[in-house]
Amino acid sequence: MKYALYYWPGIQGRGEYVRLALEEANAAYDDVARSGNGMSAMMRMMEGNSGTPPFAPPFLKAGKLVIGQTANILLYLGARHGLAPKVEAGKLWVHQLQLTIADFVLEIHDTHHPLGPSLYYEDQRAPAGKRTDEFWKERTPKYLGYFEGLVKANGGAYVAGRRVTYVDLSLFQIVAGLRYAFPKRMKAFERKIPALVELHDRVAARPNIKAYLSSERRIAFNEDGIFRHYKELDL
Amino acid sequence: MKYALYYWPGIQGRGEYVRLALEEANAAYDDVARSGNGMSAMMRMMEGNSGTPPFAPPFLKAGKLVIGQTANILLYLGARHGLAPKVEAGKLWVHQLQLTIADFVLEIHDTHHPLGPSLYYEDQRAPAGKRTDEFWKERTPKYLGYFEGLVKANGGAYVAGRRVTYVDLSLFQIVAGLRYAFPKRMKAFERKIPALVELHDRVAARPNIKAYLSSERRIAFNEDGIFRHYKELDL
Repeated sequence: MKYALYYWPGIQGRGEYVRLALEEANAAYDDVARSGNGMSAMMRMMEGNSGTPPFAPPFLKAGKLVIGQTANILLYLGARHGLAPKVEAGKLWVHQLQLTIADFVLEIHDTHHPLGPSLYYEDQRAPAGKRTDEFWKERTPKYLGYFEGLVKANGGAYVAGRRVTYVDLSLFQIVAGLRYAFPKRMKAFERKIPALVELHDRVAARPNIKAYLSSERRIAFNEDGIFRHYKELDL
Repeated sequence: MKYALYYWPGIQGRGEYVRLALEEANAAYDDVARSGNGMSAMMRMMEGNSGTPPFAPPFLKAGKLVIGQTANILLYLGARHGLAPKVEAGKLWVHQLQLTIADFVLEIHDTHHPLGPSLYYEDQRAPAGKRTDEFWKERTPKYLGYFEGLVKANGGAYVAGRRVTYVDLSLFQIVAGLRYAFPKRMKAFERKIPALVELHDRVAARPNIKAYLSSERRIAFNEDGIFRHYKELDL
């Protein structure tokens, strides 16, 4: 079965967590909105004639199923491609971790959009500065400290043990994204999360991920995505 | 099996979506942190000796399982108490809707905390006013319009069809909460969501929910929770 991934073209965004899972699994997929009439196909899917229209991209078409919400897509893919434990307790645990990452991703987004997603960054620069300061003072240490503790407690390979899960792929993306958006702040912070930095490198070196990262399928970070580099927010 | 729910005492917060599901299912549970040494028991659970410490409340102890993240807990309870479809497609669909509600709940929270959860409301009043205006202009119509369309398309009973799911219980809470926090704005907005208002009433009239709402187990809305009434934000 060939999957169809629907996500905004031109950004990594939330679609990237799904792409990383598909790539690690070596699954066949079309990144629909990035070619031809893909954007209008995506918009039609959201108009709701199906009875189960997604609220927003990303969503994944898997045969007759249309699955929305990043963590929900990963729940589905994880079970099918060996990217999550098979037993219920393990399955719920890695899903729980992914939902915690989803919360963190929203907080990362809000560093440049504290007044909401419907206004431009340029209209909220001062509050963005304040929110970013709080983010690095309180939130990043809390979230990344939590994941650092989990990786260490598990012996340092992957967050749920010796086998890679979709959560590890997402943690790779978090480290890579924070490095792009806040190079100075992240450089200073990284000494507090050595296990996560190693996990990042371990994921980046996996053959399928390595091939993906150097391919054209990997969109470059840019200032329309979740992780945006604005010099004034990086001190 | 008697469940143990761990959540901050004194607020409905994210724990309320779990409480509503437990109550509708007539499941036996302790609301641990609300009595005796419950708070210190909760804090110990988060310290991580288990190997799978939750990042934050709410979390649910179900036998040996400890499940964190609201939507993850509902995924688990829904399957066990008939509060979600049994087939995979239906199970993924209602979970997807719950994750969309989770996103909306975070945006509701951010109306009074646009600069982040670690500062007081009193320190972010002006940005809170701006974010709240955007929230009512752009975000509430988008989210609630989406759910209104789903309920209507399904004949008007519940969001996924004729049987109640945990998503309906959460939508009840959203309507009730917005009425508490923004009575004037919500009064004006409700004519745009007649199906959701009816769904709210239908849930409130279900025997187990009705009994719960008039019991002491239902904590009153207040200004420490997600839905806060600040006059200046209700214009």
